[in-house]
Amino acid sequence: MKKLFAFSLIAFGATYANAQDNPLMGFTSNSSAKQLQTEQQFDQSISSERISATLKDLSAYPHHLGSPGGKVVAEKILKKFKSYGFDAHLQPYKVLFPTPKTRLLEMTAPTRFIAGLKENPLVEDPTTDQNGQLPTYNAWSADGDVTGQLVFVNYGLPDDYDMLASMGIDVKGKIVIAKYGKSWRGIKPKVAYEHGAIGCIIYSDPKDDGYFAGDVYPKGAFKNETGVQRGSVMDMVIYPGDPLTPNIGSTDKAKRLDRKEAVTILKIPVLPISYKDAQPLLTALEGPVAPAEWRGALPFTYHVGPGKAVVHLKLEFNWDLVTAYDVIAKIKGSTYPDEWVMRGNHHDGWVNGADDPLSGQTAMLDEAKAIGDLLKTGWKPKRSIVYCAWDGEEPGLLGSTEYVEDHDKELQQKAVVYINSDDISRGFYHAGGSHALENFIGEVSKSVIDPETKVTVGERSKAHDLANASSVKARKEILDRKVEPIDALGSGSDFSSFLQHLGVPTLDIGYGGEGTGGEYHSIIDSYTDYNRFKDPGSVYSAVLAKTVGHAVLRMADADVLPFDFRNLYTTLDGYCKELVELANNMRESTAMQNQLLKTNIYRLAADPTKHMDAPLAKSEVPAIDFSPLTSALDALKASAGKLANKVAAAPASDTDHKLLNEIVYKAEQQLLSPAGLPRRPWYRHTIYAPGFYTGYGVKTMPGIREAIEQRNWDEVKQQIAAVSARIAALAQYLDKAAM
Amino acid sequence: MKKLFAFSLIAFGATYANAQDNPLMGFTSNSSAKQLQTEQQFDQSISSERISATLKDLSAYPHHLGSPGGKVVAEKILKKFKSYGFDAHLQPYKVLFPTPKTRLLEMTAPTRFIAGLKENPLVEDPTTDQNGQLPTYNAWSADGDVTGQLVFVNYGLPDDYDMLASMGIDVKGKIVIAKYGKSWRGIKPKVAYEHGAIGCIIYSDPKDDGYFAGDVYPKGAFKNETGVQRGSVMDMVIYPGDPLTPNIGSTDKAKRLDRKEAVTILKIPVLPISYKDAQPLLTALEGPVAPAEWRGALPFTYHVGPGKAVVHLKLEFNWDLVTAYDVIAKIKGSTYPDEWVMRGNHHDGWVNGADDPLSGQTAMLDEAKAIGDLLKTGWKPKRSIVYCAWDGEEPGLLGSTEYVEDHDKELQQKAVVYINSDDISRGFYHAGGSHALENFIGEVSKSVIDPETKVTVGERSKAHDLANASSVKARKEILDRKVEPIDALGSGSDFSSFLQHLGVPTLDIGYGGEGTGGEYHSIIDSYTDYNRFKDPGSVYSAVLAKTVGHAVLRMADADVLPFDFRNLYTTLDGYCKELVELANNMRESTAMQNQLLKTNIYRLAADPTKHMDAPLAKSEVPAIDFSPLTSALDALKASAGKLANKVAAAPASDTDHKLLNEIVYKAEQQLLSPAGLPRRPWYRHTIYAPGFYTGYGVKTMPGIREAIEQRNWDEVKQQIAAVSARIAALAQYLDKAAM
Repeated sequence: MKKLFAFSLIAFGATYANAQDNPLMGFTSNSSAKQLQTEQQFDQSISSERISATLKDLSAYPHHLGSPGGKVVAEKILKKFKSYGFDAHLQPYKVLFPTPKTRLLEMTAPTRFIAGLKENPLVEDPTTDQNGQLPTYNAWSADGDVTGQLVFVNYGLPDDYDMLASMGIDVKGKIVIAKYGKSWRGIKPKVAYEHGAIGCIIYSDPKDDGYFAGDVYPKGAFKNETGVQRGSVMDMVIYPGDPLTPNIGSTDKAKRLDRKEAVTILKIPVLPISYKDAQPLLTALEGPVAPAEWRGALPFTYHVGPGKAVVHLKLEFNWDLVTAYDVIAKIKGSTYPDEWVMRGNHHDGWVNGADDPLSGQTAMLDEAKAIGDLLKTGWKPKRSIVYCAWDGEEPGLLGSTEYVEDHDKELQQKAVVYINSDDISRGFYHAGGSHALENFIGEVSKSVIDPETKVTVGERSKAHDLANASSVKARKEILDRKVEPIDALGSGSDFSSFLQHLGVPTLDIGYGGEGTGGEYHSIIDSYTDYNRFKDPGSVYSAVLAKTVGHAVLRMADADVLPFDFRNLYTTLDGYCKELVELANNMRESTAMQNQLLKTNIYRLAADPTKHMDAPLAKSEVPAIDFSPLTSALDALKASAGKLANKVAAAPASDTDHKLLNEIVYKAEQQLLSPAGLPRRPWYRHTIYAPGFYTGYGVKTMPGIREAIEQRNWDEVKQQIAAVSARIAALAQYLDKAAM
Repeated sequence: MKKLFAFSLIAFGATYANAQDNPLMGFTSNSSAKQLQTEQQFDQSISSERISATLKDLSAYPHHLGSPGGKVVAEKILKKFKSYGFDAHLQPYKVLFPTPKTRLLEMTAPTRFIAGLKENPLVEDPTTDQNGQLPTYNAWSADGDVTGQLVFVNYGLPDDYDMLASMGIDVKGKIVIAKYGKSWRGIKPKVAYEHGAIGCIIYSDPKDDGYFAGDVYPKGAFKNETGVQRGSVMDMVIYPGDPLTPNIGSTDKAKRLDRKEAVTILKIPVLPISYKDAQPLLTALEGPVAPAEWRGALPFTYHVGPGKAVVHLKLEFNWDLVTAYDVIAKIKGSTYPDEWVMRGNHHDGWVNGADDPLSGQTAMLDEAKAIGDLLKTGWKPKRSIVYCAWDGEEPGLLGSTEYVEDHDKELQQKAVVYINSDDISRGFYHAGGSHALENFIGEVSKSVIDPETKVTVGERSKAHDLANASSVKARKEILDRKVEPIDALGSGSDFSSFLQHLGVPTLDIGYGGEGTGGEYHSIIDSYTDYNRFKDPGSVYSAVLAKTVGHAVLRMADADVLPFDFRNLYTTLDGYCKELVELANNMRESTAMQNQLLKTNIYRLAADPTKHMDAPLAKSEVPAIDFSPLTSALDALKASAGKLANKVAAAPASDTDHKLLNEIVYKAEQQLLSPAGLPRRPWYRHTIYAPGFYTGYGVKTMPGIREAIEQRNWDEVKQQIAAVSARIAALAQYLDKAAM
């Protein structure tokens, strides 16, 4: 009989070499020592020089979805996987992908101005002047030819329209201009449309993304005056992937919606522009001065509009079906071939995409190379390893979503974990994902050394949190942490469908914080820029490869899969407390606001020469019964504890482990609601979802949280029941495993 | 026997007409009703039309200290007082006043640029193009001819230099450029000098004072590209007034210091410039990008410097003795001629000075007119009323300080109260001063109706606080207030020497918040600007006249002077709690910071490609014994309570009141420390002083507070003893009055 490890909480600062005394999660003392040896070998194969060379090669030409360059990149990746010993193939999907046919933005009054809509190429950066670049646009904008008065709407979020309303300004029949930032870009035109706007312009203000932040390209890393952020505005919070094939893979023979039925395509034309193009439009605005927090860094007084400024926006797109080439590469597991440890990163860019996605993609390819090198030494993973290079992430997670929808049953059966990465840069480790994997990835973060400071990446990340904490209290809390928390995941990369549609345990891992710049989705996201400003020599891509590589290898070889549902309980308990506090705060502030309204305070405090209405009275927040949720959490706490005890005492027979492992990795599926989230059934996870009005930004326990935020008190009750039912089901399910 | 009133706490919202049931503080039911009648008559004499006409007349030409226009204004004011029936005279003082002889600012490398140093006149504003304007400069700059590298120092405060040090940058032998704002301007060159700089440029960034804030003049009220804020940089936190005659009046025969001995004159040359002049200098800076909070609204990346940018600054001044003409105007009291109710506002401007000081000065003149009208009806004040129009406030409170120093003994004997105003604009009532007058002035604020909202100015001010409070908690606290708090006074206007040098009970009253703009100390501070943007038709100057007029009349006619030391106790108790919390927070954060330093956290969190040193380790904060202070406060609480009871039960004989009144109005002198504040003995008030590193901004219990902030632990102990002794002395003194 082998001596079995415990699901131990590894204290911060635990070192790398004490496998005998503190075996890795999921390993025995012996298998742990062997695993660490394997990782050392793996690390020796990782080469930042090779990663950098691959980055230069793959970023040499534009390689967006459906482009010749994109296909070349997919084929190069395929060839690499094959050469490393993977069983690899191209997996094609036919997806809708709009590209621009007509782009016209002009101001017709009070003066005439035609927007350039062109990023200036730079002699200092050779790939900025290439054929085949996608013009600056937002994919999934509607076709449209609209003319209207212009209104500046800050970041274009619901609160901004409330502020406009209090200033007596509406956007019905008008064109809005919003700043990039604060939310995912797709929220802006959606909210504009909800408020009656007929068109939406999004620009990069130099305050958020330009000279205010730092020297502009090519002197520095930040956005220069003609820089434009391309990007998708698909209404991805309803469902991601091909708008024509929700819930199913967009194979050749898939039944497609008519384009008009696809609710994730925008209803109004939308166009991103540079700050150079925005300046004449903004300076022509009249009306009140914009609120102080709305103002950017352009050298004039920001007004809200409207006024004499009239804008004409004409956009037409080619609505073509194109082929997305996912690359799927497998190593068959020696013991559990039907348990898949999955790893992915997309390969399509908006233009040359050196950072986004190639900084992550090249790391992933080097992991594959290192795994190939291990294979050559005779090592074999217990579980199957599946590497995925996704196409069409940029327009809306197309390649990953179609693959997941196409293989939903198989993945729910076999996928042990999905580990994602995307664009990274020099700096600090961070991770997000399924909280039952929080201890596991925390342990992994202590197995990789940061090249700048020579401490583990986990330690450095904690140091960053400590140094940047805003109060002594916050610092004390960080120092007192027994576990380094991982973030909850919203959207914005290829993990979404695995986690939120299928309930596959997910991790998303990255590095950043020291390579900020303005290249995102522009022609500046080049090898030249990347190597100067983001991660010279691809040093941190190599660190990413080691971090994710260790995670993949440990998941592939663990005796018992390293899940710990006690962390999930603690996290959910924290969410529950947040929701109680959110409701209490809303109740208090609503009561206070209504009291001030009754006593006329806002009118008395207002300047009568300015139009500023008092806020609207809101319905009082009722008492909310959270007891179903707290009861379910109590049950989960007990079950997670019992399971942890069972694992600690488990006999070392392989059969037992297989059963236990299978139960454990499928457990997260218990958190899926069959009905999905209100008004967006594709999203089935009751704990994690992108926010309906944040986009990429996560809302945890989204059914309850968004119902509270939207003051939908009946739905709050229903959703407390729905979420509690799934947590209670998970508790029961874990009890079975613990028996 | 007359029925006597109590020092009643008047609840918020109490109305004006219930004198019978709720007599005014200091009045009986009968005398209260009569007083309200007098005030109604007074109000009928106040005319915004007349105020506006006076404003136009007095602002027609530049009228700074020592100018022909200044003398004309003083004489016009004198004539008005006389015509209203006051016994008025000009009181001259001979004071030092530097004016520019040479002003040169040029950049000599990397490119050549000569600063314009000239505000552009505007055809839209006729008085902007007049002879006799003072050029743009900072009075009390040193003469100097310096050349050096340029460094941008944010607002030029001590923390900014700490940040520079952590970036590896010092200013020794260099010229600094600082933004106007955050502190009083005089702090900037002083701190620059302390850090070894050889010159200091201060500019108005459009973020704080220019197009970011709103449309610029003449389209809007904000500072345009050539606008410059003139102003004094005298080291006024050591002592205000003529630098050559500290502590004594600068009469003809006064013994004067040599200019070199005058510590309040700056040691390095200082020059204020416009953002148009600043832009070439700032864009030429190299070195690290400025921290985000340092950056302004000019359209480029702010760097800290130094680098190739070399600046040549040459300044020479005429160091002339000029005559300051104070105007002193008296009405003799019928019952207590040797009790003086004093009222003041300065009359000198930097240029035309429509807002600063004439918005307050013209209100004061209308009060005098209305008092004159009352005299004609046979009314006579019980106490003497003394109106003062000060000269030379702008260069450093010269006129008021010299008068106060010249009459110190008489004022300590006779001055019942000094009520100050200065520049005001449309908006909200606010008051600061001696907290024993908090209830009194709160009651006055409920006797004047706001013209925009038709509620009392006190109610509107509270509505403003409520609407702008940042949290539900803050709003609850405001709603729960039994008394509307008044601010503690620092410096920046003529109350300083009355309150902080002599301990005369003081109030400073103003209006504002709805007339913001960029005219301050520039050629734009004109009648045209004022009447368009600050207070059209001088409506709020009339409101100020009514507010201060009621205060003057009530103080002049009260049966018992309306002081309540219970408010003082409550306020001081609050300061004591703040100090305890300040020390506790510093202790906690120092301990935490030292812990993080020991574990190397800052280095681990830093980007090694950027120079950013960890903060310096600081000495741990020792335990501090505040018990002397809390004991003294306990005694004050008891004494203030006893005195309030005595006043409530006082028999109504005139003799008794005289004695009681005299004790009460001199009580604040008990809070003066004979030794004065550390390193600035001129400031003798132990409770209120301008901050050594804030300038205008107040520091309460300054001896203790600044010793804590400067981590001077021995001095903390000494100052707790010193402040406690004065509070205990006041308690004893009040006990005598209560016997």
